Amino acid sequence: MVKVTVWNEYRHERNDDKIAAVYPEGIHNQIAGFLKEAGMDATTATLDEPEHGLTEEVLNNTDVLVWWGHIAHKEVSDEIVDRVHRRVLQGMGLVVLHSGHMSKIFMKLMGTTCDLKWRDVGEKERLWVMNPSHPIAEGIGEYIELDQEEMYGTHFDVPAPEELIFVGWFEGGNVFPSGCTYRRGNGKIFYFQPGHEAYPTYYHPEIQSVIVNGVQWAEPTKRAYPVYGNSKELETIKREVLL
Amino acid sequence: MVKVTVWNEYRHERNDDKIAAVYPEGIHNQIAGFLKEAGMDATTATLDEPEHGLTEEVLNNTDVLVWWGHIAHKEVSDEIVDRVHRRVLQGMGLVVLHSGHMSKIFMKLMGTTCDLKWRDVGEKERLWVMNPSHPIAEGIGEYIELDQEEMYGTHFDVPAPEELIFVGWFEGGNVFPSGCTYRRGNGKIFYFQPGHEAYPTYYHPEIQSVIVNGVQWAEPTKRAYPVYGNSKELETIKREVLL
Amino acid sequence: MVKVTVWNEYRHERNDDKIAAVYPEGIHNQIAGFLKEAGMDATTATLDEPEHGLTEEVLNNTDVLVWWGHIAHKEVSDEIVDRVHRRVLQGMGLVVLHSGHMSKIFMKLMGTTCDLKWRDVGEKERLWVMNPSHPIAEGIGEYIELDQEEMYGTHFDVPAPEELIFVGWFEGGNVFPSGCTYRRGNGKIFYFQPGHEAYPTYYHPEIQSVIVNGVQWAEPTKRAYPVYGNSKELETIKREVLL
Amino acid sequence: MVKVTVWNEYRHERNDDKIAAVYPEGIHNQIAGFLKEAGMDATTATLDEPEHGLTEEVLNNTDVLVWWGHIAHKEVSDEIVDRVHRRVLQGMGLVVLHSGHMSKIFMKLMGTTCDLKWRDVGEKERLWVMNPSHPIAEGIGEYIELDQEEMYGTHFDVPAPEELIFVGWFEGGNVFPSGCTYRRGNGKIFYFQPGHEAYPTYYHPEIQSVIVNGVQWAEPTKRAYPVYGNSKELETIKREVLL
Repeated sequence: MVKVTVWNEYRHERNDDKIAAVYPEGIHNQIAGFLKEAGMDATTATLDEPEHGLTEEVLNNTDVLVWWGHIAHKEVSDEIVDRVHRRVLQGMGLVVLHSGHMSKIFMKLMGTTCDLKWRDVGEKERLWVMNPSHPIAEGIGEYIELDQEEMYGTHFDVPAPEELIFVGWFEGGNVFPSGCTYRRGNGKIFYFQPGHEAYPTYYHPEIQSVIVNGVQWAEPTKRAYPVYGNSKELETIKREVLL
Repeated sequence: MVKVTVWNEYRHERNDDKIAAVYPEGIHNQIAGFLKEAGMDATTATLDEPEHGLTEEVLNNTDVLVWWGHIAHKEVSDEIVDRVHRRVLQGMGLVVLHSGHMSKIFMKLMGTTCDLKWRDVGEKERLWVMNPSHPIAEGIGEYIELDQEEMYGTHFDVPAPEELIFVGWFEGGNVFPSGCTYRRGNGKIFYFQPGHEAYPTYYHPEIQSVIVNGVQWAEPTKRAYPVYGNSKELETIKREVLL
Repeated sequence: MVKVTVWNEYRHERNDDKIAAVYPEGIHNQIAGFLKEAGMDATTATLDEPEHGLTEEVLNNTDVLVWWGHIAHKEVSDEIVDRVHRRVLQGMGLVVLHSGHMSKIFMKLMGTTCDLKWRDVGEKERLWVMNPSHPIAEGIGEYIELDQEEMYGTHFDVPAPEELIFVGWFEGGNVFPSGCTYRRGNGKIFYFQPGHEAYPTYYHPEIQSVIVNGVQWAEPTKRAYPVYGNSKELETIKREVLL
Repeated sequence: MVKVTVWNEYRHERNDDKIAAVYPEGIHNQIAGFLKEAGMDATTATLDEPEHGLTEEVLNNTDVLVWWGHIAHKEVSDEIVDRVHRRVLQGMGLVVLHSGHMSKIFMKLMGTTCDLKWRDVGEKERLWVMNPSHPIAEGIGEYIELDQEEMYGTHFDVPAPEELIFVGWFEGGNVFPSGCTYRRGNGKIFYFQPGHEAYPTYYHPEIQSVIVNGVQWAEPTKRAYPVYGNSKELETIKREVLL
């Protein structure tokens, strides 16, 4: 059974009544809830826990980490970011949601600013499937329609996605690479754009399916970590020329 | 005329007679020399100059930066690395050579450890062209043969190259993705593996051609930097649902 | 000077007064015109010429072939398609425009149906730049706006583009991978979606710039065609085991 | 349970005693055997059966088709090739082995000549894992060593692999992109180079693991086939300009 840790900064839900009305138990519990229903072993961790809930033990027992953050990216300690980074390179999957695009961990893995255009006026989004054979699109129709979502618009300053699963169409005239996969080290990363805190996006059945699929796709591949460094020759080398 | 700055840590050539015998003027001057012959406006910068020779003014006047470093990666100040990083994201090209794979700037742009297998016994390498239509392969035969080179072997802990131009075959039984392109922000990056300081690799005509081609390929694309941040709608949005 | 042949089926412009009003000299002459203004050696060829204007001699003297077709794809002879296919694999660039997506030559190079959603009601399109460092985007703003264009919508049944330069936003709610590059053999291919015959798309300055850039990008790389087939060993092989 | 059909031209094993000694039941039965051991529902089909064993019924009941052919590619009827092609585009996985690179179906899906360098002198090959997080590499060490294999060498005239899983090092001085994935339509394709008929390659446990992994990776994604063709608008379009 895949072991998932859902991380949330968990601030909006405690500071803002409107957000609390949408996610009374916090975004993390909403997400962990539907992952459990899909048969996963899902737990949660939040910013204000010791070590942000991401101790070495927790991370060593995590197959896939789901990340939601927004207003408190800077409060995440560099030490914990480095710890998560090491674990991703060692094979832990990472699913980064919505405003997690500006999290320290995502920026560190991408090597770019991860900046984008945005607008929060509650406009319609339609997420189109671009890659019909990808397991992350399993069970999804031609598009997913969201009555209201924050607009995230191109240009998105990330490396070109290795696989582009969704492109978002926004009512206000923008487009966005809304579902992107990356591989870094031995880890797989899925970025998925929907999920502004003010809208009930994570209650949408197809959005839930995409996140479940994304977690499954990001599960670690079972093999030994590569050996780096000085390496003896595997074949005889003629040393005709003196060094 | 493309403006190139060739950066070199310039230590081996001053501290080790064997290396000085190969590159008496330093690796940077050897590279700048053949870039000039190819009609480029090439200057040099080295670690021990103030600001490592990479002042704001120098970088703002650089179209493409070539980077060679090996034993002193840690001596490069984080401030200068951040400055180079910003310039790459704004559009400056970057050609990273050989042991530059462990430079702070390359690691920061890749988001991974950039580690690899290595062995320095002076074995033969044969670099095969994998992408025959790529401008970086222009004028290059089916392969480039180097009598002696340091072995760099897979797994190379970088993101999958966006374009794989060369794969190196090593006498001792290893292979390596020896010519790789990436795009980060508005900048183009070319990593090219050959060039251990103890061998006359940068005197090889085809190696020189590849670097010349790589610099040309990495030249900035002329267009305005994208606008990020809050962005007004371009089309009328129906706000049927109250926010 | 890059030698371009602009191929057009040239039927709409002769059979339909409305189209003739937009392109009185034919789409091919409109395109060849702005390519010449950009300093290129551009000629034209059309379906009803002998060998569709694409003799061995013409193709052997073509660096980049631009293709526009729509209602007469089936009238293009398989022999000529095979001839163009061979030339692309040998290095000739190919720029496929708009409804050329269903041309025999594009389908043969892609290996898929090249099908898509479409709708021709004269809606607005906005083409967003996705890849800011790509030379095909040189000089282009954040997006190109077309008052009226035929809608082409995802899913587009082609292989995932090797580079995705533009995504089109359509007023009616669709998106499309509107600027895509591919490499096949020694040839480079650029598909660009705008250009329905009923709208003055090829008079738009930025659309013209993209096509000029696309032709430049698709120019052949100068190197010998790879050698295939039986190949003697380059290194001594120990034959310890009898065959 | 994944339903696999293993197709083999089945000629060498009946015409050549040396090959019969290696694969007395045919290559197809050897492969089907280890797929069954891995828990798959594997059956076989061969060239000389009616419709080459690939009736509509067989293909409609196949999740993943494995293909081995060599000397009789031309005897495969175009009608059956078109049938397999349609099924791949509809979602059936395809695993193409060794000399299957020149099969009609692979060439049709790739759009290129699929040519390569080759040499059959029984040299050593070492297949290096290039993509450590890919499920096709699950359980595989840093490399797979084959005492004797036919050399397949770069340049391999196929589109750049979407994912490059293995690179082969050959004793005689060549390299090859030995494990490549592609997506075409709704189908996933894995090409894997080892498997010359004269060597016991398909008895090698790690080669078997790769093929098992490849079949699993290529399983169809469950979702409706995309709708193509004329498509009504999803949003209101302002028709300010008369058509």
